[in-house]
Amino acid sequence: MTAAAVLACDWGTTNLRAWTLDASGRVVASRDFALGVSRLQPGEAAARLESEVRPALDAVGTPAVLCGMIGSNLGWCVAPYLDCPVGLDDLAGALVAPPVTAGDASGWARIAPGVRGDGLAGAGDVMRGEETQLFGWLALNPDRARGRHLVCHPGTHAKWMVVEDGRLTRFVTAMTGELFAVLRKHSVLKSDAPADDAEAFSEGLVAAGDGAALAARLFTARARVVGRGKPAESTPSYLSGLLIGAETASVPRLLGLAPDTPVAVLGDAGLCALYRQALEHRGVACETFDGEAAAVAGLFALYRKGTGQ
Amino acid sequence: MTAAAVLACDWGTTNLRAWTLDASGRVVASRDFALGVSRLQPGEAAARLESEVRPALDAVGTPAVLCGMIGSNLGWCVAPYLDCPVGLDDLAGALVAPPVTAGDASGWARIAPGVRGDGLAGAGDVMRGEETQLFGWLALNPDRARGRHLVCHPGTHAKWMVVEDGRLTRFVTAMTGELFAVLRKHSVLKSDAPADDAEAFSEGLVAAGDGAALAARLFTARARVVGRGKPAESTPSYLSGLLIGAETASVPRLLGLAPDTPVAVLGDAGLCALYRQALEHRGVACETFDGEAAAVAGLFALYRKGTGQ
Repeated sequence: MTAAAVLACDWGTTNLRAWTLDASGRVVASRDFALGVSRLQPGEAAARLESEVRPALDAVGTPAVLCGMIGSNLGWCVAPYLDCPVGLDDLAGALVAPPVTAGDASGWARIAPGVRGDGLAGAGDVMRGEETQLFGWLALNPDRARGRHLVCHPGTHAKWMVVEDGRLTRFVTAMTGELFAVLRKHSVLKSDAPADDAEAFSEGLVAAGDGAALAARLFTARARVVGRGKPAESTPSYLSGLLIGAETASVPRLLGLAPDTPVAVLGDAGLCALYRQALEHRGVACETFDGEAAAVAGLFALYRKGTGQ
Repeated sequence: MTAAAVLACDWGTTNLRAWTLDASGRVVASRDFALGVSRLQPGEAAARLESEVRPALDAVGTPAVLCGMIGSNLGWCVAPYLDCPVGLDDLAGALVAPPVTAGDASGWARIAPGVRGDGLAGAGDVMRGEETQLFGWLALNPDRARGRHLVCHPGTHAKWMVVEDGRLTRFVTAMTGELFAVLRKHSVLKSDAPADDAEAFSEGLVAAGDGAALAARLFTARARVVGRGKPAESTPSYLSGLLIGAETASVPRLLGLAPDTPVAVLGDAGLCALYRQALEHRGVACETFDGEAAAVAGLFALYRKGTGQ
């Protein structure tokens, strides 16, 4: 088999996704671990990486490069936020080497910093992990290195990022995925039905309109069942269309961009397809990109820059 | 003591609020019961009214007039929705007499219908109970009988109602109160702290802006704690200001009204005060009115119209 050159990890709150890469950055092996930082005991990140992740991926003793919540105060070692605007070189120059302890045979390991922005209303905003996918996406799509691009990373806390001449200049977070989860589980809109009703999703996109007055638009998910006899099982799909429709219609303006600014959607394929549908519903140009490939490319680019290779 | 003339009940999902009124509509006695329709066994509404409510309020054998969810398919007897536009005479003419059973000594009882509107995006919209408060408010404020007025009834599912020449012509529901409850309890914004921090409430009002892109604005409640060091205990107050600010800034436009249309806020005094603050923050004229007095006046007006007295 090909020798492992580097262990790359996107280590989030819930899960750890790890890839063994060869010297040219190709994926040799990959695996998910239920080892997100919210599931770790304090101080055990290094030990779990050594005892579980490295052996499972034939990556014992290789260099390791990590991004995500593992660099937060809940993780292994804090990699402080960098302020926007930020480029790949800035991130690579701010990789943090976690302390090596007696029981830690990790050798060379580096943790990527997160990024901090002004956010809305002076509240600030933060990300950890999406910045690495963003720069991986840029590495995979060198035609985007110049000019201004709007990139959306959908998820529990979706990130909308503006890239200008290869640097992340500003971003906002929309908690669309979390709104969907809590409303689906805990509100008058709750339902155990799967969100797989394409017609109800489209109906939700229409109801989203320009995204204003979301609290009122959300009640249509109830009213269409109570007053119009729509099946309650279609509520999750309708709610998904409504929330994604409202987000995609309203967030670009918060970033100072026209609502019809083309969007690159980067992330999970299924979620990207829903965002594409929402954007195209309003006639907005959209391309989708695989988030995993971007994460790998971003981590490998950080590794190479960080080691000067 | 003054003889009871009528038992008036606002019988909702969670609670039953009942008043004994004298022949001129004055409150002789009142009490809350944890007998909301969601807490009733099927078919027991009449029996519980007879055995618990009437005796406790010295109202055995009096006529009774009821509004709210007691007229839904979860209640005592369905009082079908009337479609907008609706006036007090329409409601009084559509009072429903529940069937009298062997065990039911209720005598004369009437249940008010709910009201149905077009809602948003063709989804329809419904209310049960707020219409009675609205017409009670009109009865108590005869100077509002002419012209157009915008009335907000805040709550779990806030109602925004347009009254024109004494008739309810259209309305929308905003699930602001429910959003607050589920986010406070189940999301990354969760906190057990009380929502009593006036400064954080004001900060939320500012962050609400014009109310657009709510999913993104909501994340500021997280970012201000993580990135700006604001105390997590201030999150409920901030969230309250953000949600009420966004609602009051964005809902009037959905009803075809300018964002600076004066608002009459009708309901719980504490909640009304928060809405007043949100509206005045944006320079919108606002008056607040007691919801309980309006409910009593509305039920009494329905009773008089319904009996031709």
